Amino acid sequence: MRGAVLYAPGDVRVEERDDPKITEPSDAIIRLSATCVCGSDLWPYRGIEAVDGPSPMGHEYAGIVQEVGSQVTSIKPGQFVVGSFFASDNTCEICQAGYQSSCINKQPVGAEGAQAESLRVPLADGTLVATPDLPADDLIPSLLAASDVLGTGWFGAVAAQAGPAKTVAVVGDGAVGLLAVLAASQLGAERIIAMSRHEPRQRLAREFGATDIVTERGDAGVARIKELTGGLGAHSVIEAVGTQESMLQAIRSTRPGGHVGYVGVAHGVELPGTELFFSHVHLHGGPAPVRRFLPELIDLIWNRQIDPGKVFDLSLPLEQAAEGYQAMDQRRAIKALLRP
Amino acid sequence: MRGAVLYAPGDVRVEERDDPKITEPSDAIIRLSATCVCGSDLWPYRGIEAVDGPSPMGHEYAGIVQEVGSQVTSIKPGQFVVGSFFASDNTCEICQAGYQSSCINKQPVGAEGAQAESLRVPLADGTLVATPDLPADDLIPSLLAASDVLGTGWFGAVAAQAGPAKTVAVVGDGAVGLLAVLAASQLGAERIIAMSRHEPRQRLAREFGATDIVTERGDAGVARIKELTGGLGAHSVIEAVGTQESMLQAIRSTRPGGHVGYVGVAHGVELPGTELFFSHVHLHGGPAPVRRFLPELIDLIWNRQIDPGKVFDLSLPLEQAAEGYQAMDQRRAIKALLRP
Repeated sequence: MRGAVLYAPGDVRVEERDDPKITEPSDAIIRLSATCVCGSDLWPYRGIEAVDGPSPMGHEYAGIVQEVGSQVTSIKPGQFVVGSFFASDNTCEICQAGYQSSCINKQPVGAEGAQAESLRVPLADGTLVATPDLPADDLIPSLLAASDVLGTGWFGAVAAQAGPAKTVAVVGDGAVGLLAVLAASQLGAERIIAMSRHEPRQRLAREFGATDIVTERGDAGVARIKELTGGLGAHSVIEAVGTQESMLQAIRSTRPGGHVGYVGVAHGVELPGTELFFSHVHLHGGPAPVRRFLPELIDLIWNRQIDPGKVFDLSLPLEQAAEGYQAMDQRRAIKALLRP
Repeated sequence: MRGAVLYAPGDVRVEERDDPKITEPSDAIIRLSATCVCGSDLWPYRGIEAVDGPSPMGHEYAGIVQEVGSQVTSIKPGQFVVGSFFASDNTCEICQAGYQSSCINKQPVGAEGAQAESLRVPLADGTLVATPDLPADDLIPSLLAASDVLGTGWFGAVAAQAGPAKTVAVVGDGAVGLLAVLAASQLGAERIIAMSRHEPRQRLAREFGATDIVTERGDAGVARIKELTGGLGAHSVIEAVGTQESMLQAIRSTRPGGHVGYVGVAHGVELPGTELFFSHVHLHGGPAPVRRFLPELIDLIWNRQIDPGKVFDLSLPLEQAAEGYQAMDQRRAIKALLRP
């Protein structure tokens, strides 16, 4: 089959790779209907994360089950399924508490690379969620978004306790940040402040439910959020970048007693203990337990109540994966969908 | 009046100071029935926090109202009252959300030094809570404990979401840690692991409701907590020290999705962002909003359901404050009560 492999920073190639095979009786093989490039794929693409030899890329996937292992009981060949970047048993105490991305038996699905024609998914029964039927083509981008960026933005909003009567601020205008806006809106937030200086992203944020746009960053961004919230800060702030600046911006934009939900994969972040102590914020986040939210998210998409697929403003054949990376790296695209 | 003043690390003197006076119409003057030395007083006493010239010490107080300013309506002369280390209006949006120690009008009560015969308390109506009547003498230590260490331990337990069916671990065996054990017990925790290597403190922890004692610290302490919790970590961990080691010990002892409540005043703490991200814990804490809990705590003490005053294992006349500091510094005493 064909699949994307990162050889070195900036060097993504689509090449012939071995077809995936069932290796454990709990595995499933999926023929991907769509896959995509993640903001977190840009860390190694930009050389900020080390690239140790050629690495299959991608961890977002939706498609049709081809084959299942002998122990798989709930997932069946022919079903259209969505899964998350961590395979989980969905039965351990940690999964049952809603933290499937810390499942005691978790396995990174991305290790084998989802930017490909097919993918082996471990722990299929615990990881995959089937749609009610085969989806219409126009639903596929949204279902793919549920695999990571929607689920991650949603977790950020839940971790930040976005909800009725709350003012929510979102730091980061990538796909996750934009979908955190959508999540906050769905969760009933009264006011949603998107922090973005890019016109097309501002427009999408508004479409997803943002009531205010703040273009300032850093200290000026914090000052503007305070100004908009009677000097107190937002009740809920979602951090969707993962840098020191964005984390501090999120913490400082939150009122005492408020909640920071942080889902940007932390890179080089060191939180100053004394400031955090006196900030009085709640801090929660990490790799989103997307599996917790998948049934609900698939339902919302299936019933056309949300259209998260709008974050894909570039759609390419899988063969052109390199252009997808480049467009996202240069911020010419919010998110690139790849069609195998 | 007489009051304790810190001149330099290790140099506490009780000397003649000006009697406090009403300076704002919302003030009250209290004649202290008891005051005490706080673990946080040891930071400057040990020279870890700078001492800028002679500083009146103490921020824990309970006593009888002598005089109130013209705007004070709910607090009356003759009442026995307990207050917290931050004066708060108890009416602003932050106070109403339960974060009185971040009140938009907060004032540190300790600035004038509560280790004294009398004390001016700003924002008396919002800060002080009166007991139903004048208390019996033997209740005074417990009521004094409510002023800070009980309220702080309680906040730690609430921030860590201690409660039924939860395993709670407590890092730190000072008065706050021990009272966090008591709080977790009152909140219905199923299992409470106190981390302590000091026999008298272990005994008090057990009296307050600890079901297990762990003597190991650092990585070994974390390993022991994991061992006691099926490899997962505790649901709720209360951090009551404030050092880098204790914070990491708390975070690493918590299961994914669990809660860390941290109330040890942070000193030199830098939290590694990547580890925190993948830990999946909830982090909340800071200066305890004691005022939130005071009515409930006073009620529990008044009805003799809890006896937090047991943390005072040394009682001295105010004149001997220096010995109280020394005994706590040398860990000969858990907490020293001072009688003016």
